[in-house]
Order: sequence, then structure tokens, then C-alpha cells
Amino acid sequence: MTYCVGLMLKKGLVFMSDTRTNSGVDNISTFQKMFTWEVPGDRSITLMTAGNLATTQAVVSMLEERSKGPGDRKPGILEAESMFQVANMVGSLLKEVIAVHANAGQRADAVFDATIILGGQIGEGSPRLFMIYPEGNFIEASFDTPFFQIGETKYGRPILVRAYDPDMSFEDAIKLLMVSFDSTIKANLSVSLPLDVHAYEAGSLKNGRVFRIQQDDPYYEAVSSGWGVALREAFRQLPAFALPKDD
Amino acid sequence: MTYCVGLMLKKGLVFMSDTRTNSGVDNISTFQKMFTWEVPGDRSITLMTAGNLATTQAVVSMLEERSKGPGDRKPGILEAESMFQVANMVGSLLKEVIAVHANAGQRADAVFDATIILGGQIGEGSPRLFMIYPEGNFIEASFDTPFFQIGETKYGRPILVRAYDPDMSFEDAIKLLMVSFDSTIKANLSVSLPLDVHAYEAGSLKNGRVFRIQQDDPYYEAVSSGWGVALREAFRQLPAFALPKDD
Repeated sequence: MTYCVGLMLKKGLVFMSDTRTNSGVDNISTFQKMFTWEVPGDRSITLMTAGNLATTQAVVSMLEERSKGPGDRKPGILEAESMFQVANMVGSLLKEVIAVHANAGQRADAVFDATIILGGQIGEGSPRLFMIYPEGNFIEASFDTPFFQIGETKYGRPILVRAYDPDMSFEDAIKLLMVSFDSTIKANLSVSLPLDVHAYEAGSLKNGRVFRIQQDDPYYEAVSSGWGVALREAFRQLPAFALPKDD
Repeated sequence: MTYCVGLMLKKGLVFMSDTRTNSGVDNISTFQKMFTWEVPGDRSITLMTAGNLATTQAVVSMLEERSKGPGDRKPGILEAESMFQVANMVGSLLKEVIAVHANAGQRADAVFDATIILGGQIGEGSPRLFMIYPEGNFIEASFDTPFFQIGETKYGRPILVRAYDPDMSFEDAIKLLMVSFDSTIKANLSVSLPLDVHAYEAGSLKNGRVFRIQQDDPYYEAVSSGWGVALREAFRQLPAFALPKDD
């Protein structure tokens, strides 16, 4: 399993992904699920993946190769003129990769599926955030629906819905995502630290802070244990329930 | 969809279920999903259902009929000697009902499936809480795993995990369940008020307070809005995150 969130703020975009992949509970590895590209002064692109690892790695490798091969006739994501074009490219590639493998060998439902969160900014365009489906089509975030989650999305959703604020700082957004990830990690063994983070500042047109939160990160541990205490205290402060009287 | 929780406390058992059923988003109804039986001084039994409504209603109707027909050769749940026997009866009945319909007419995967939470106390036995699977087998709660959820379980789980305490009062347990239900209702349209509640007091051997929380219940509304405020405040109190310095 996987958990990734892309968050749209007035200040920019924040991405967080876990790094655990598993094929059964006894075959667990750490793989990067967040990938960034940049052409400073022109663009910053971030991509996060959930689903079949062979599919998502193939998509990322092909994006990499195309972006490095200047002789290639097809323009890569570093040449695309808008984030919409990038989303289109990634969507087609994803659909292509799934189709190749889905029709060869083993046939199991949806086993090669993958879902992608894509965000970034190119040139004059504003920062944009997309969720790309295995079928290659995609939807875009707006301040009505300012975040996308992929993978194990449910445990971490209530706190996002309650505490998200479009005006929040990067620091607060990362704290919020840590709480959301902590709820998920506590509930689903197949989601785990380290976490990859990218905070992209709107208008900067270069990668922002990209860093990894390790297994024993003291701040993460403070959030994780502090959140339990804070939740219980918040719960205690709610008005007390009175059982209805017997008739 | 559905959301039901059965909670084991030192003081007894607490059950809560929603009442929304739907077949598509344009076919929504209110149906009871919690059923109680009692023989004061001898037993109290509570059952909550999730899954195919025809299946769960058939199971409940058959349990009702058997408990009312004294001439029936098979003993009903009001004659069973222990909660384990009741769980066995309900499990067999559930498996039977699913099997009858699964092999006739339409064949879709798991479409007649249902899952049941069963709890109560009989005679000298202690209060017991079971989760019964569509296959008819079941597991029992203990203070290691003191609650069972069925239906849309994920959104409401983090708060149960964090704030449950085996020593809590019925009032606190109901408050906790309301918070858990509120997180679920906010996230999934197919779970909704009214909520049915039963608080069974260990050793009482009769039904405890059984009541319904209606759509516009002022306490539920206070918990729902208060919880949003309390969560944001709890979040604010967590230590602030500091972005790592640029290299």
C-alpha cells in the first residue's frame, strides 16, 4: 500500500509520500514514490505514485529518458508548455504502460493499475495540481477541492478535512500532513516512514525544499505522541453526554 | 453503506449503528440495523448488521420467528445456553441465507454478503462481543481488541484507537462513538443519522438504555461542531514544524 497527499495552498504546493511497498506482509521494501524535475526559472514538476510498482517505475523511467534524450522526436515534460500538457503526457504514458502489461501473461483484475498525483508550475501559468487515473484521464484541484490523496486515503482524511486552510504556512501544512500520515501509519502496516516531502513555493519556478523524514525523526515522534495526547484532551473538552432517563 | 461499532467496556457493552441504506445515491432509505432481545434476569442480546439488506433482514426475521415459536424443534437465541451458542446460531443462519440466494438468479461477487456484530450476556457468563463473517465463522473481542467495526470502518477508526479506555463510563463511550460516527458521516454520504444506541450494563441481564439519536439532536450537533473546533485547537497546540535549512 501507499499513502500520498498533494495539497494546494495560496503559498504553493505541498507534497508528501510514504516509501513503503509490499507484496504480502513478508516482502516489504522501501521505494521512493515521489519524483521531482526542475528547470530553474522555468518550471518545477512533482509526481507521486500509488499502485503497481513495476507500472509506476516504468512511467517514471520513461519520463526521465524522454527528458534526457534531446534527440527524441517527442517532447518531454521539460519541454511541455503547460502543466496541462504534462498531465496529458503522464496520463497517456500511464495508460500505455498498463495496457502493455495487462494484455500479456497473467490476467488479474486491475493488478497493473496505478494512480498518480502530479503538481507544479511552468512559466507564466499558475501552480496546478492533478490526479491522474489508470485510464489516463485526470482531474484538477481547485480551492473547492484543494487536496488529492492516493493509496490508503481514509484514515488520514478526517483531519485534512477539518484542519486544512488555504492560507496556512508551509510549516503548518507539513505538520497537518504529518498528523494525517500518522493516523494512517498507526492503522495500516503497509504505510510507513520514511516520508518524502516537497514544499513548492508559488512563483519560484524551481524546486523548493525537498527532504526526507526518517524513521526516528524527533519532530515526527513529537507529533505522533503529542497528537494522541492532544486528541484525548480535545475529546475530554467536548460537552459530556447524559444518558436519557429511563421511561 | 453502513457504520456500526460494538465496544467492550469494563462496565458493559455499548453498541451504535447508523440507519442509512442505499442502493445507488438516488435510492436512500432509513432502516434499523440494530436489534435487541431480552429475557429480564436471564439475558440481553444485541445484533447489528452491515451488508446486503435482504440478507440481514432475513437473518433477523428468522431469529425473531424462532424465538417466538415455542413449538419449533430448534431452540432459538432465547433458549441458547451461552453467547457462544448464540454466535454459532447466528453464524449458521447467516451462511445459510447467503447460500440460498447466492446460487439463484443473478451471480455477482459477494453481492449477498453481510457481516454482523453480536454482543450480550446470558446467565452466569460474562458479557461477550463477537464479529460474525459471511462464511458463518466469527471472532470474539477481548481487552486486547476491545471493539469491532463493520461497514465503512476507516474514517472513524483513528479516534477510537486513540481515545478508547476500558474504564470509561457509558456516557464517555457514547461521546467517543459519536465523534467516530461524525468523522464517518462527514466523509461518506451513505452513512447517516439517525443513530441507534444500546448501552448494556454488565451483570444486569436485561436491555440497558436503548435509544435513537435523531437527525437534529442538539447534543450530536454540539459534538459535531465542537469536535471541529477542538481538533483545530489540538492541531494548533502541537509543536511547530521548522523547514530544514537550504544547503
